[in-house]
Amino acid sequence: MDEVHTEVLAEVALSDPVLIEGLPGVGHVGKLAAEHLLEEFDATLVARLYSRHFPPQVTVENGRSKLVGLEFHAVETEGADMLVLTGDHQAQDNEGHYLITDAVLDLAEEHGVSRVYALGGVPTGELIDEYGVIAAASDDLLVEELEPHVEFREDEPAGGIVGVSGLLLGLGERRGLPTACLMGETSGYLVDPKSARAVLEVLQEIVGFDVGYDSLEERAEEMEEVVKKIQEMEGAQQPPSDEDLRYIG
Amino acid sequence: MDEVHTEVLAEVALSDPVLIEGLPGVGHVGKLAAEHLLEEFDATLVARLYSRHFPPQVTVENGRSKLVGLEFHAVETEGADMLVLTGDHQAQDNEGHYLITDAVLDLAEEHGVSRVYALGGVPTGELIDEYGVIAAASDDLLVEELEPHVEFREDEPAGGIVGVSGLLLGLGERRGLPTACLMGETSGYLVDPKSARAVLEVLQEIVGFDVGYDSLEERAEEMEEVVKKIQEMEGAQQPPSDEDLRYIG
Amino acid sequence: MDEVHTEVLAEVALSDPVLIEGLPGVGHVGKLAAEHLLEEFDATLVARLYSRHFPPQVTVENGRSKLVGLEFHAVETEGADMLVLTGDHQAQDNEGHYLITDAVLDLAEEHGVSRVYALGGVPTGELIDEYGVIAAASDDLLVEELEPHVEFREDEPAGGIVGVSGLLLGLGERRGLPTACLMGETSGYLVDPKSARAVLEVLQEIVGFDVGYDSLEERAEEMEEVVKKIQEMEGAQQPPSDEDLRYIG
Amino acid sequence: MDEVHTEVLAEVALSDPVLIEGLPGVGHVGKLAAEHLLEEFDATLVARLYSRHFPPQVTVENGRSKLVGLEFHAVETEGADMLVLTGDHQAQDNEGHYLITDAVLDLAEEHGVSRVYALGGVPTGELIDEYGVIAAASDDLLVEELEPHVEFREDEPAGGIVGVSGLLLGLGERRGLPTACLMGETSGYLVDPKSARAVLEVLQEIVGFDVGYDSLEERAEEMEEVVKKIQEMEGAQQPPSDEDLRYIG
Repeated sequence: MDEVHTEVLAEVALSDPVLIEGLPGVGHVGKLAAEHLLEEFDATLVARLYSRHFPPQVTVENGRSKLVGLEFHAVETEGADMLVLTGDHQAQDNEGHYLITDAVLDLAEEHGVSRVYALGGVPTGELIDEYGVIAAASDDLLVEELEPHVEFREDEPAGGIVGVSGLLLGLGERRGLPTACLMGETSGYLVDPKSARAVLEVLQEIVGFDVGYDSLEERAEEMEEVVKKIQEMEGAQQPPSDEDLRYIG
Repeated sequence: MDEVHTEVLAEVALSDPVLIEGLPGVGHVGKLAAEHLLEEFDATLVARLYSRHFPPQVTVENGRSKLVGLEFHAVETEGADMLVLTGDHQAQDNEGHYLITDAVLDLAEEHGVSRVYALGGVPTGELIDEYGVIAAASDDLLVEELEPHVEFREDEPAGGIVGVSGLLLGLGERRGLPTACLMGETSGYLVDPKSARAVLEVLQEIVGFDVGYDSLEERAEEMEEVVKKIQEMEGAQQPPSDEDLRYIG
Repeated sequence: MDEVHTEVLAEVALSDPVLIEGLPGVGHVGKLAAEHLLEEFDATLVARLYSRHFPPQVTVENGRSKLVGLEFHAVETEGADMLVLTGDHQAQDNEGHYLITDAVLDLAEEHGVSRVYALGGVPTGELIDEYGVIAAASDDLLVEELEPHVEFREDEPAGGIVGVSGLLLGLGERRGLPTACLMGETSGYLVDPKSARAVLEVLQEIVGFDVGYDSLEERAEEMEEVVKKIQEMEGAQQPPSDEDLRYIG
Repeated sequence: MDEVHTEVLAEVALSDPVLIEGLPGVGHVGKLAAEHLLEEFDATLVARLYSRHFPPQVTVENGRSKLVGLEFHAVETEGADMLVLTGDHQAQDNEGHYLITDAVLDLAEEHGVSRVYALGGVPTGELIDEYGVIAAASDDLLVEELEPHVEFREDEPAGGIVGVSGLLLGLGERRGLPTACLMGETSGYLVDPKSARAVLEVLQEIVGFDVGYDSLEERAEEMEEVVKKIQEMEGAQQPPSDEDLRYIG
């Protein structure tokens, strides 16, 4: 097992694809959004990425084990082709983030990816009604190009962007690969399908695909039920505790 | 000292052996089970595995020091030959788990191992009477083959399997080496010889050896004495504290 | 991305330059001092240094992302030429500190640097009026040479000097590159522009440049306002809390 | 700067020397003992060992910085020649302990060292009057040879031996270099010159040198004064707090 190992599982010929990344993070916004694409479109698993920088762990479903790692799916839509990166884990250390992001970009380049979109959430600290989407991009041209579709704010996100999403911007720029990060506002307390939808609505406009949101809406309604129950239980006096949220997620 | 170093101590010719792994973990179930095999059968120490990813430590017995590491013993029984992996430590970091598991599988392959059984415990959070054993396997054929002997549950173990046991499944699959993990239910509060026996009873049926359990029973009785004392002391009002358990273990 | 990568952005021919380092640390004294030089003089960005030992992070300003790293600026003044090292982060682990400092010294040597000055703060634990500056140097000749300008104390700083500033001394000595660290006294509770000015006043005498302090004074006055407010709020009974200070910084 | 780098500072020709190691640890027993040898005998600094696995730090004395690392001194006595290893730090991570110990043994072998003595303390948890010294050795012959001089106990030290002392035993054995660890009993609460003397008295008998203990006695008396004061202050009702001890040390 190398430090990072990409196992190719299928050969596909995508036409001018974009890379869409959605890994775990604030409100699981990016992960929900990317997984929604895989549910709504026909998707082919093209590669898995393993690394010694992931937890030493397998998941188990119905008795079958699977080594933790990232997955690349190829998605062809009428509007655009996409390589979608999903997974349940981020690297466990700094170097791992760099090495894994470099390996992701290597595979993206092998597939002729010319644009990368990292999806994520930005925490607001309070429950919200209007789901704004803010953005960051790795070069000025891309900022200009995306400005009609998404908001760029002077000082946000305040702490910068960390993890694979952040490094796709940072290492993407160094490779001359235009990269943007789309971040849905989210309380930060809850897994947030509504924020994921807001991000996808921006993304579909930019990339040019067409997708429905019924299943995300259903998940959002389930979440709202749970939030309502917690608010009743607690007399709406305090934000849900971590314990509650772990249950909710 | 390489990152991982396997020192061969004896040449043995095992006939179609299976690898049995029992390292420290929940309830020390795997470790107790594997060590029981070494007590009950004639066992030859065939190799030791050292690594910079283990603690920088020696154990001392009667004044003689021994560098911490893993040990492989060869065990020949009427029913089947086994390579038994035991030790007092897991790796101290993520990369170490991967590197050490790869080295374990290398040695297993050199001995012609065609099947791996990782032994461990799965915590239930409460003291139990009926010791169920659940399993996970690295390929569908093996799941099917083991189903008459052991339970595969839809969502268990919930958090997946971590450490060397988990990676034997994950890296075993990647080498095409069928690997199963047998996990005895255990409270998670106590070193649990009864759970170890439950695991071994499943294992002996699958692998085809015959072993007695007197010494495990004795240890189980000792544990029960201690638990009883604690329950008396505490009026059975609360689970034993960590302090108690450290003493018990 | 290598472990450490230096990207050269401009070729400049400096005349017998000194290296000035000012990275985050106690009271942000070094960082404030080095950044003040970049504000007051014409400065050319000559190189950036990236590393897997930095956080996996980009900063974002007006929508444009920038991978975290260190920056080298060339500054030519009438009195002396300087290579000024600034940045928002230190390495995240021990090895990173060593590797990054070695890469900094490599670049310094390529520019013909013959003297290194690391700038920082030394915590006193109480608010102070008189900003003393103490020093440490990597060889006896340099101690002697600097003695007219700065104080060398028998047992200070008590805990030695850590991070890049410390290693510039340690690794600088091993390369035969005379290196000094100038440390401004500071409470340790506040970002401290006055301490930065004290350090710069010593530095300008030693290196031989001439700089104004209006902007640092303004920042110092702003800080004083904030401290006054906190003291009023708390009846001057206790030092400002971490929470306050994070706000202040 | 390599991961570990040994800088040779003087060529000496020692006659059949032993290596004596005394690094920081329980009660600073080993460190006090080794430093006492350097004070009492003429000692030549023969090498320094630097590593990226040490803290990124310099110490400062009278303004002169010194990169943290280990030091080897050559000591020639009438009875025996010694290579004495001292320093203020242990490695900061597991791998560092292994790499540094290997480098120590490399240098020892270059000097023809045929026997290694690691010095340290073993905590008893209470203030003690009789300073026992227990031992561990890397091979049975050495256990036998040392038995007239020092105590080998069945189950002590219970947790094994960690750090460089532990690995000198573990890696020394693997090189076939007979290694012993001598551990003085000590409360574990205090820097303990009396325990260091007890260890040295055993060592001098084994190795065959002759040393006085006046300066260690003085230090022990100072410590006793401090302990007495603390006991008065606290009415001898509780063991000295960590805060006190840091002051004492």
